[in-house]
Amino acid sequence: MARVVVDVMLKPEILDPQGQAIARKLPQLGFDGVTAVRQGKRFEVELDGPADEAAVERVRQIADTLLANPVIETYEVRVLQDD
Amino acid sequence: MARVVVDVMLKPEILDPQGQAIARKLPQLGFDGVTAVRQGKRFEVELDGPADEAAVERVRQIADTLLANPVIETYEVRVLQDD
Repeated sequence: MARVVVDVMLKPEILDPQGQAIARKLPQLGFDGVTAVRQGKRFEVELDGPADEAAVERVRQIADTLLANPVIETYEVRVLQDD
Repeated sequence: MARVVVDVMLKPEILDPQGQAIARKLPQLGFDGVTAVRQGKRFEVELDGPADEAAVERVRQIADTLLANPVIETYEVRVLQDD
């Protein structure tokens, strides 16, 4: 069983109101030193086989069609563990 | 400027309907070999200083109070880059 992680983040030029709200709130809560927060999604995809090249490519296609919106988001696929 | 990532995932024993919906949909879309999907959140926190031990500890406190719900979620803090 292998686990592949897909990290989905808004493109830098896309406004992220959720992240901005968090960043604005931090000083009021006593947390200084944070200049920005961006919020994205993380998916853990469990495969029934090994995370070989074909499997990772399949996860990439899943990310592209189902997990991310390529118009406003970027994604990164990486193998987490393979045991 | 340093960037710290906070990954927030539902605890394994907490039901994840969003992830389940994705996993169920995959075979209908022609994607086989995925046994489970879990959906979580990913935060990129930008610091105005270096990601030293004190700064990472501060981000951990932010995660604990604001980014994650420790009752149902676990989180992981890691330094992404420090330049």
